[in-house]
Amino acid sequence: MARHDGRKPTQLREWKIKRKYTRNAPGSVLITSGRTTVLCTASVDDSVPPWMKGKGKGWVTAEYNMLPGSTSPRKQRERGGKVDGRTTEIQRLIGRGVRAVVDMTALGERTITLDCDVLEADGGTRTASITGAFVALVDAVRSFASAEQAKAIIRDSVAAASVGIVEGIPVLDLDYVEDVAAHVDMNVVMTGGGKFVEVQGTGENAVFDEHELTAMLKLARGGLKELTLLQRDSLGKFWPFG
Amino acid sequence: MARHDGRKPTQLREWKIKRKYTRNAPGSVLITSGRTTVLCTASVDDSVPPWMKGKGKGWVTAEYNMLPGSTSPRKQRERGGKVDGRTTEIQRLIGRGVRAVVDMTALGERTITLDCDVLEADGGTRTASITGAFVALVDAVRSFASAEQAKAIIRDSVAAASVGIVEGIPVLDLDYVEDVAAHVDMNVVMTGGGKFVEVQGTGENAVFDEHELTAMLKLARGGLKELTLLQRDSLGKFWPFG
Amino acid sequence: MARHDGRKPTQLREWKIKRKYTRNAPGSVLITSGRTTVLCTASVDDSVPPWMKGKGKGWVTAEYNMLPGSTSPRKQRERGGKVDGRTTEIQRLIGRGVRAVVDMTALGERTITLDCDVLEADGGTRTASITGAFVALVDAVRSFASAEQAKAIIRDSVAAASVGIVEGIPVLDLDYVEDVAAHVDMNVVMTGGGKFVEVQGTGENAVFDEHELTAMLKLARGGLKELTLLQRDSLGKFWPFG
Amino acid sequence: MARHDGRKPTQLREWKIKRKYTRNAPGSVLITSGRTTVLCTASVDDSVPPWMKGKGKGWVTAEYNMLPGSTSPRKQRERGGKVDGRTTEIQRLIGRGVRAVVDMTALGERTITLDCDVLEADGGTRTASITGAFVALVDAVRSFASAEQAKAIIRDSVAAASVGIVEGIPVLDLDYVEDVAAHVDMNVVMTGGGKFVEVQGTGENAVFDEHELTAMLKLARGGLKELTLLQRDSLGKFWPFG
Amino acid sequence: MARHDGRKPTQLREWKIKRKYTRNAPGSVLITSGRTTVLCTASVDDSVPPWMKGKGKGWVTAEYNMLPGSTSPRKQRERGGKVDGRTTEIQRLIGRGVRAVVDMTALGERTITLDCDVLEADGGTRTASITGAFVALVDAVRSFASAEQAKAIIRDSVAAASVGIVEGIPVLDLDYVEDVAAHVDMNVVMTGGGKFVEVQGTGENAVFDEHELTAMLKLARGGLKELTLLQRDSLGKFWPFG
Amino acid sequence: MARHDGRKPTQLREWKIKRKYTRNAPGSVLITSGRTTVLCTASVDDSVPPWMKGKGKGWVTAEYNMLPGSTSPRKQRERGGKVDGRTTEIQRLIGRGVRAVVDMTALGERTITLDCDVLEADGGTRTASITGAFVALVDAVRSFASAEQAKAIIRDSVAAASVGIVEGIPVLDLDYVEDVAAHVDMNVVMTGGGKFVEVQGTGENAVFDEHELTAMLKLARGGLKELTLLQRDSLGKFWPFG
Repeated sequence: MARHDGRKPTQLREWKIKRKYTRNAPGSVLITSGRTTVLCTASVDDSVPPWMKGKGKGWVTAEYNMLPGSTSPRKQRERGGKVDGRTTEIQRLIGRGVRAVVDMTALGERTITLDCDVLEADGGTRTASITGAFVALVDAVRSFASAEQAKAIIRDSVAAASVGIVEGIPVLDLDYVEDVAAHVDMNVVMTGGGKFVEVQGTGENAVFDEHELTAMLKLARGGLKELTLLQRDSLGKFWPFG
Repeated sequence: MARHDGRKPTQLREWKIKRKYTRNAPGSVLITSGRTTVLCTASVDDSVPPWMKGKGKGWVTAEYNMLPGSTSPRKQRERGGKVDGRTTEIQRLIGRGVRAVVDMTALGERTITLDCDVLEADGGTRTASITGAFVALVDAVRSFASAEQAKAIIRDSVAAASVGIVEGIPVLDLDYVEDVAAHVDMNVVMTGGGKFVEVQGTGENAVFDEHELTAMLKLARGGLKELTLLQRDSLGKFWPFG
Repeated sequence: MARHDGRKPTQLREWKIKRKYTRNAPGSVLITSGRTTVLCTASVDDSVPPWMKGKGKGWVTAEYNMLPGSTSPRKQRERGGKVDGRTTEIQRLIGRGVRAVVDMTALGERTITLDCDVLEADGGTRTASITGAFVALVDAVRSFASAEQAKAIIRDSVAAASVGIVEGIPVLDLDYVEDVAAHVDMNVVMTGGGKFVEVQGTGENAVFDEHELTAMLKLARGGLKELTLLQRDSLGKFWPFG
Repeated sequence: MARHDGRKPTQLREWKIKRKYTRNAPGSVLITSGRTTVLCTASVDDSVPPWMKGKGKGWVTAEYNMLPGSTSPRKQRERGGKVDGRTTEIQRLIGRGVRAVVDMTALGERTITLDCDVLEADGGTRTASITGAFVALVDAVRSFASAEQAKAIIRDSVAAASVGIVEGIPVLDLDYVEDVAAHVDMNVVMTGGGKFVEVQGTGENAVFDEHELTAMLKLARGGLKELTLLQRDSLGKFWPFG
Repeated sequence: MARHDGRKPTQLREWKIKRKYTRNAPGSVLITSGRTTVLCTASVDDSVPPWMKGKGKGWVTAEYNMLPGSTSPRKQRERGGKVDGRTTEIQRLIGRGVRAVVDMTALGERTITLDCDVLEADGGTRTASITGAFVALVDAVRSFASAEQAKAIIRDSVAAASVGIVEGIPVLDLDYVEDVAAHVDMNVVMTGGGKFVEVQGTGENAVFDEHELTAMLKLARGGLKELTLLQRDSLGKFWPFG
Repeated sequence: MARHDGRKPTQLREWKIKRKYTRNAPGSVLITSGRTTVLCTASVDDSVPPWMKGKGKGWVTAEYNMLPGSTSPRKQRERGGKVDGRTTEIQRLIGRGVRAVVDMTALGERTITLDCDVLEADGGTRTASITGAFVALVDAVRSFASAEQAKAIIRDSVAAASVGIVEGIPVLDLDYVEDVAAHVDMNVVMTGGGKFVEVQGTGENAVFDEHELTAMLKLARGGLKELTLLQRDSLGKFWPFG
């Protein structure tokens, strides 16, 4: 059975990573997967939140946001004091995902903030955010650290992929149309070394069995290998892992 | 290797369910697992949110809250306009978990709100909430529906269990001490029929491999069978599934 | 004339006090009066608000909240940044009531927070809150103070009772049905020693005369003697006043 | 014993009422008592809140606010989304006080909003607010009602006075210096006909006995007679009660 | 062509300044222009915002507010956490306007807050606010500074006037009726020495040409001379500029 | 005297307009002037705000926002319920600027929202926003209107330029370094036909005279001619004005 855009079940959309997209933030990455575009910037602050002071450790945090024009119809800004539940969930996922590969003691008393602003949304914005934010993180770390130090701070790479079951078939890297049609939706965050950081499978108004879980995990693993290579190519000599 | 409270890795804490704990809400369940206590009430409103009107379907939503005295030190109330990220994540999880087993068309244009207020917290409050909220849901549905109708509205039971890896060993139903020590933490929401509704595994500042994932899923499945039986016993003749 | 539940005008509902209801807070009291149930916890923090620092004095504050399922129809949570006027009024009343019997210098630079969360509401939640919060306060004080010290910190006991005029008759301890029917509603906070701490009489859309005021105050005094005895019995040897 | 400003215990400060102080609101009263000045405006809206629609009844509500420059040091504006507890308590008191003398059915489906903005604060702002708001209410009612109709809408006049115990002596109409020194503080809202609308006596960090309560109530009654006369003089032929 | 109130195009409304209107704030000015009335108070705080500490400089800030009864229909209070855009714009304009004539180093580490509360609104509230706030500022400065010092702190006087094009004619000092009818609306803030501090010309749903701009600026200059004289008369011997 | 980047006083930075930058919004323009980059999207909604319903007219509104990574150090998101004053001022300016050239009756009952999100900030973000938003507006109008209809809806083009006095010299199109150094800062919004829509000149802690005002207006006029040509070139055959 063909996917609506002609891809094979195991096939990613076209992904591109453009580093140094803007110049005020030390890490600035424009990542696109098909028609999803996210601007990931990484800013460095030479201090840590009050509750972390004096421990000699750093902190990495993330914020996620969709620009109003990124969707049709227009999405209202989250200004009225209330960040919606989905946004909160996604930015916590990005933060945990990236923190899993950072050595906070090696980072020292610094805060790195990863801002993932979606310019155009067509499904998979959270996985694009994590995958792009990692590249921005490397550039931000290199703004104050040598290659040697960066290797100590960043223990492994990290990327994320979505998988799901659409019309009974497990497929990789769902776009918006597939996302809506999927009965099960799973996001997998994985290190370059092949370890899980996060597995989140959800059947909203539906359920799934062990067999389907296994098939989705396998698809995700394949896609994540490709995304890790893309990150490595994009960083070139700044790739911290030899 | 023994757990700090003497349990075997596959052993649940002592769980109890007390129905009709208060009388103003049609469903009111006090659920305890060890030293964790949650009051789950289910209220019925004969209308639906504006965006659902006229579709002939109902809605189930959940709210989660920890009372200030449920923890030591005291937890501040979430009154300043800002519900914290963890709370948002948990109440969305409860809502999705219970919605997965409800037939919204059979429910009709009604909203059922599940309120899970933690009276005492010692780890596992979200899994206790889901497990208790399901029982409160059944009582609330029976306040307006016959046994026959309830069976159409509620397609299956649902419960949740936590598993994790503590000092290298996969263990079931973590209390607070284990939760803090765990390198990987996973919550599994499953139907009485043995299907997954939600799988959320997280390695904050750590990672996990396929082998560990498999071991945790197996543990969860065992615990969830027991919790389903506890729900059935508690509901007695109100258990909708014959 | 009989009251709708058969009580005499001078008769309290059935009141019960259960200490150590939960274990994380040093004071934890479940108080019930008829179908009104309030969980009162008292937490101790070894610091004071910024504006009190360095004065060698302590502080006692209270928060009041109704759980959503405590009423029918369900009461919405006060999360949207706005605590409603009634809540504010009640928690200020509880705080003033309890502070009146505490010697802040003997307490030292500590803050005791009294949380009164209503699990089930059938009228009289504010008077149950004060009466229960006093008992929780004693347990919390004893968590850091000897019997001798507690006697210095807590100068007297305090309790509260509601009175009102229903169909022309002054009655004690109104439940919800009577509360709605009452033309005048009065809350009296009194010490075990028989002094007033607070007298609040209100005729919403009605007025009252001196004669009615006197009758209500007399009823309240009678009820408060009984509630003081209940507090004493419940605390047993922890009752600070010999 | 002399009061710090030379008044006798039974003596009010100098009170003045200036009607039609501004012209956009139909009722606009500048009321001063000593160095306390409050601008009370009454606005009329030909609709009622949603929950009152179609019942043929009106509504009266009040808002209270202190201008930043009314105190020294400057008081911060309540703009940050949070109205403080004292403000809430006072505006609820004003609203209840005035509603007690209004016949909502005679008023018809209209909302009258009483805004009490304190221009200068020297104690007793809530009692000045109620006393002034009543006069503004009469002017506002006369903007749409005949003398005959006004008499049906407004059943009686209402005014408020503060009393307290300062250095053991019951005194009337406390200014700021006395307010701070008082061990007991009581506000009494009373109709022109001599009935109580509200009695609020508070002993913050202190208590009071029946004898003191009686003395304070007597003082209040005396002061309120004078304030009722001042209201009548100020309204002249617009005084609704013949 | 006559203006609706009979004024000539170059004619101001009747302006009055009343100093020491209230007594708690060191500067307190009631300014009226026709039926517009603004209470401008200036409060002094012997500290500066955190971001200015230790620089030996002071700060001047302004807040603007319309009382609910100042307009018909009643204007809702800005309490719900949201200050509206117009309010923000106006209070920023007042702050910039007054800061332009203050030597922050001569002021020293103090904050002066200018509160402009509109008691009655009939157009031109922002220009009345600036013109009155300057007078309140002088009184506030003189509360801690000698005449000599005040001259060093306050470099020049400042006032503001509105101009506009109504039915093709440039007019000075628009009231509400003219404001609504104007196609172009301009506010000019100018020093006593004749220099511009701020020029804000706006054609909402309309445009204007260079010729009209020049005509409006000329009208404003004329009006501002008169307002400067009024400020000087009002301050008498406290006028800082010899 | 040379400008720090070698430009002549009358010289714009390099400006570029890229249409159709993203695809979900009908108008999507990436505008850059030197190192300032703004994404302007225009969304169309087939309804109007409640207060405009049934009048047969449309509405155009604007929102402005700086992404956190657009500045160094990182700018905090405006999520805490409070949109800062500068943001409010700018988005009101953009809205008024564009509304001045739109015929609301010809537009019909539609709302066009212009979102200006700053990706990189180096001064002049508000003028780039207006200039880019106009182009996005044209594309959005053409998504539902013929060339003929668009000409009726959009009466003229509109663009904006900043001018200022830096070290005594009037200069055009200030970047961030010049903006900080400028004693006077002026923004001019002008139609393609050469009429003013808005003139805002501000001397924060400084003043300016008539001569300087005239010089700045002349510089602005020159720059705005060039920007109008750039808009026309970018729109090509979609330029509505023949």
